[in-house]
Amino acid sequence: MSDAVDGTLLIIGGAEDKQGECRILKEFIRLTEARGGGIVIMTAATQYPEKVSSEYINIFKRLGADKVLSLDISSRRQAQRPETKEIILSAGGIFFTGGDQLRITGILGGTAADWALHEAYRRGTVIAGTSAGASVMSATMIVGGDNDSPPQQSTISMGPGMGLVRGVVIDQHFAQRGRLGRLVAAVAQQPATLGIGLDEDTAVVINSKGEMRVLGSQTVTIVDCYGCEHTNISEAEPRQPLALTEIKVHILPQGYGFDLQERRPILKDEDEAQ
Amino acid sequence: MSDAVDGTLLIIGGAEDKQGECRILKEFIRLTEARGGGIVIMTAATQYPEKVSSEYINIFKRLGADKVLSLDISSRRQAQRPETKEIILSAGGIFFTGGDQLRITGILGGTAADWALHEAYRRGTVIAGTSAGASVMSATMIVGGDNDSPPQQSTISMGPGMGLVRGVVIDQHFAQRGRLGRLVAAVAQQPATLGIGLDEDTAVVINSKGEMRVLGSQTVTIVDCYGCEHTNISEAEPRQPLALTEIKVHILPQGYGFDLQERRPILKDEDEAQ
Repeated sequence: MSDAVDGTLLIIGGAEDKQGECRILKEFIRLTEARGGGIVIMTAATQYPEKVSSEYINIFKRLGADKVLSLDISSRRQAQRPETKEIILSAGGIFFTGGDQLRITGILGGTAADWALHEAYRRGTVIAGTSAGASVMSATMIVGGDNDSPPQQSTISMGPGMGLVRGVVIDQHFAQRGRLGRLVAAVAQQPATLGIGLDEDTAVVINSKGEMRVLGSQTVTIVDCYGCEHTNISEAEPRQPLALTEIKVHILPQGYGFDLQERRPILKDEDEAQ
Repeated sequence: MSDAVDGTLLIIGGAEDKQGECRILKEFIRLTEARGGGIVIMTAATQYPEKVSSEYINIFKRLGADKVLSLDISSRRQAQRPETKEIILSAGGIFFTGGDQLRITGILGGTAADWALHEAYRRGTVIAGTSAGASVMSATMIVGGDNDSPPQQSTISMGPGMGLVRGVVIDQHFAQRGRLGRLVAAVAQQPATLGIGLDEDTAVVINSKGEMRVLGSQTVTIVDCYGCEHTNISEAEPRQPLALTEIKVHILPQGYGFDLQERRPILKDEDEAQ
């Protein structure tokens, strides 16, 4: 977790409901309104910023959001502009769309926009991201990898993310694309890192205390290799399947949560009791 | 585990290599030869017994097997015949092909062939099964379910299997079809049951002591809910995603094993040391 931040993260496993109840997008609006300030849509991940931003602008307006604008940053030069920085700093909530996570980090990484994003988050802005926008949240992110595959080092490619949440690796479209293998392969490289597998139309809200709660129609799978007793990762060839024993897994639907500091699930009743 | 048996089980996650090294099929031949007696191919699972049996007869002969015949049982009447029983009892190794697991149980269940199969296994015959032939091995089997889905009760259908191995539920094509969700849903119903997810071209050999070892190019995923601290299974609606905390998972490639009695992984070195 980032230290001393006031912001909230809303990390979405992709394909969030945009027609029905729109539970997740409504929660983003609610969190943003509670914070104060408008919504800024960040389309850096996609090659089709106009199409994607107009889609989200329409949805957020339909769902009752007041101020919505899109910031279509498609170059590092643009990411360095003072106006860009100001828009980010004055946002109540920032929403990263899907696309390619490397576009987000490649365009924003180390720029004024990147700085502003962290500063806004520190001050209390809500930062949301779906699909690629979810993956980039962590310090080290999954760039790509095989779906429906057992864990192998060759099936996963990782790189530095935006670092809004530390100590975790996030994967999206998790159950829908059979990504247990690649998340395990990611976490096995550094068992102190917690794996968070987000199903489609499912999100986690992470508050400034590192408490996470689940929202949406599917589940969040937590893969905790902290207590793993054995792995062959250092001796395995890249295409050789990995061995890991004593992985701890939690499967959490809406209403459940997870304490990232204590590495323990928060049960539904427990949460209600608080 | 069945008690007081001398036989060996070879349970295969489907799509075993039939062209290259054929590690798994060769192991079946080796185990059968060590037992003594010929190979009997059981095609009850498939609607195309001639095609499937001639394919396996050709492969086993190419790989050097001496006596190979196929027993294409396609009706309960045929499964009751004394000749059928005799062929099963005199086999060194019996190989169940893929297809539909309900065809195997529906055609063989409670017949003379079913009795003979258990008796042969008790006496020391090697019983192998791939795909549907793998699923039927357990006392309660997965009949069907959704791939690439989070665990929900509605995504899984189960029924009584052939009961050659107790206390486990077996799923096949595991990583390749994203079946963590359905295996977890199966095991959650009765946490004393151990989930065994077999990848394609991957098998487990289970000896009479309940020790399992892994063979093949991918992995075996053990899902152990024995120590689960919380589940919502009794209150969840059928289509509602399940919650489960503290699931223990082991991912085991070739060379690793698992002790079904002690519920603990057997490491590669440990195995070599024995």
